[in-house]
Amino acid sequence: MIAEGFKPEQQYETLRNSSVETVRRAIRNGNYRGHTAGLGKGLLQCNLVVLPERYAVDFFRFCQRNPKPCPLVGVSETGSPMMKTLGADIDIRTDVPGYIVYREGLPAEEVPNIIDLWQDDFVAFALGCSFTFEHALMQNGIELRHIETNLTVPMFRTSIKLHEAGPFSGETVVSMRPIPRNDVERVAAISRKFPYAHGAPIHIGSPEEIGIKDIKSPDWGNAVDVRPDEVPVFWACGVTPQNVLAQAKPTISITHKPGLMLITDVPEDAEIPVLSQQQ
Amino acid sequence: MIAEGFKPEQQYETLRNSSVETVRRAIRNGNYRGHTAGLGKGLLQCNLVVLPERYAVDFFRFCQRNPKPCPLVGVSETGSPMMKTLGADIDIRTDVPGYIVYREGLPAEEVPNIIDLWQDDFVAFALGCSFTFEHALMQNGIELRHIETNLTVPMFRTSIKLHEAGPFSGETVVSMRPIPRNDVERVAAISRKFPYAHGAPIHIGSPEEIGIKDIKSPDWGNAVDVRPDEVPVFWACGVTPQNVLAQAKPTISITHKPGLMLITDVPEDAEIPVLSQQQ
Repeated sequence: MIAEGFKPEQQYETLRNSSVETVRRAIRNGNYRGHTAGLGKGLLQCNLVVLPERYAVDFFRFCQRNPKPCPLVGVSETGSPMMKTLGADIDIRTDVPGYIVYREGLPAEEVPNIIDLWQDDFVAFALGCSFTFEHALMQNGIELRHIETNLTVPMFRTSIKLHEAGPFSGETVVSMRPIPRNDVERVAAISRKFPYAHGAPIHIGSPEEIGIKDIKSPDWGNAVDVRPDEVPVFWACGVTPQNVLAQAKPTISITHKPGLMLITDVPEDAEIPVLSQQQ
Repeated sequence: MIAEGFKPEQQYETLRNSSVETVRRAIRNGNYRGHTAGLGKGLLQCNLVVLPERYAVDFFRFCQRNPKPCPLVGVSETGSPMMKTLGADIDIRTDVPGYIVYREGLPAEEVPNIIDLWQDDFVAFALGCSFTFEHALMQNGIELRHIETNLTVPMFRTSIKLHEAGPFSGETVVSMRPIPRNDVERVAAISRKFPYAHGAPIHIGSPEEIGIKDIKSPDWGNAVDVRPDEVPVFWACGVTPQNVLAQAKPTISITHKPGLMLITDVPEDAEIPVLSQQQ
């Protein structure tokens, strides 16, 4: 249990060595509101999109048609906040460290939980996140600049069109990681093994070809250097839905705060993002 | 163009060496009503489930929660028969060689097309199929008994519970392929690479552990021998939804006839089952 009054850095260091139950309790009780990178080691983490059910069929279609930015890993029953297939006791109203509430597609407020906002017609969608393939890359000896330098990965709007579904359309958001030229092929092959975590890179090498004007000015996150022996490698990014909501303008929608993800009970190397089935 | 009056075997042999456009035209015109194994070489083939939109959110949930039997590879707009993300001109009403119509979940009739049955509230779901990983296994030198002997792969009901979603629940249907003991690990690793085609085996070795009483009496398809040096290997099967419809009892639903699949324009080794995106 994390005591109130801890400084965020102390909390993070304590939670980094804690069980997922302890981490989840600290988040649920409002005692930890920081980022989740490195917490719940080895477990799948997710992006979150909550929408009223009348948008659900189109959002399902949107995710099915755009599985690289929006790999669907879990969906609640309509009106139920429990993510049954992702854990034994995951309550989507409290188990993310921070939420953004959108009205008509625009960010309206940031809240620590969504207990009072929850509606009987809400459906919660969990989407895979890049932590999974980043861990696999690091286990294979690939160093990631933004992690080494303790920065948030740089993210960019692109000209890569999404397949539309109902009101959901727009362009893909990507994250960028500089990779040594000789490692690019191996990095692509490793990340391709994780279809629930954005899969293989969506573009390699030329930011201008995908509509990125200045690699030093990301739209989200922090700029990182690309050294002469390195190539900028771009992956589809879980921030894409937040970009799409701005255009779709649902009356109300809720996402996680970037970097503050849902930690599940599913191992991140599981073949499918579903708690093992009972027989 | 396949002339009327051809014998099915002659048609099949001709179409086997034809372009996908020719194959699709023959199917669309009602001139070919046979199985699609070996046709449209190198292209993704799919199982089909058509449902009224009021069942769509739950069926989406069902597929998301059971991605091994039900890997979703394409979904139509409500009321539109075109499968836009799977091909430039795929009409789900005519482009499958044979359909089964279910009323209250029970097979009511078999029809060569569903033009007259199409409803404004229909949503068509395409699910990946085992042809994809079978081709990859054969390319890696693994012989498949049912193909060698020109039989339909044996399929069995099991006790492996599905994750339910609304009215959709029940048990997984599996297909079985005997694999030489020494190749089992390699076969599992190869098929795991195809998450949109049922992925890795769901069980290896003991039919009785998954509720199969007699390996020589499949529920669908033909029995094949398991030789002393072989192990029975079980994959989740695209016939599962047909089993589930019987319990869900939607007023009307339509599937392909087993073995008579939808042939798409998407390469079967594509990372995602979506025609390449325009930029």
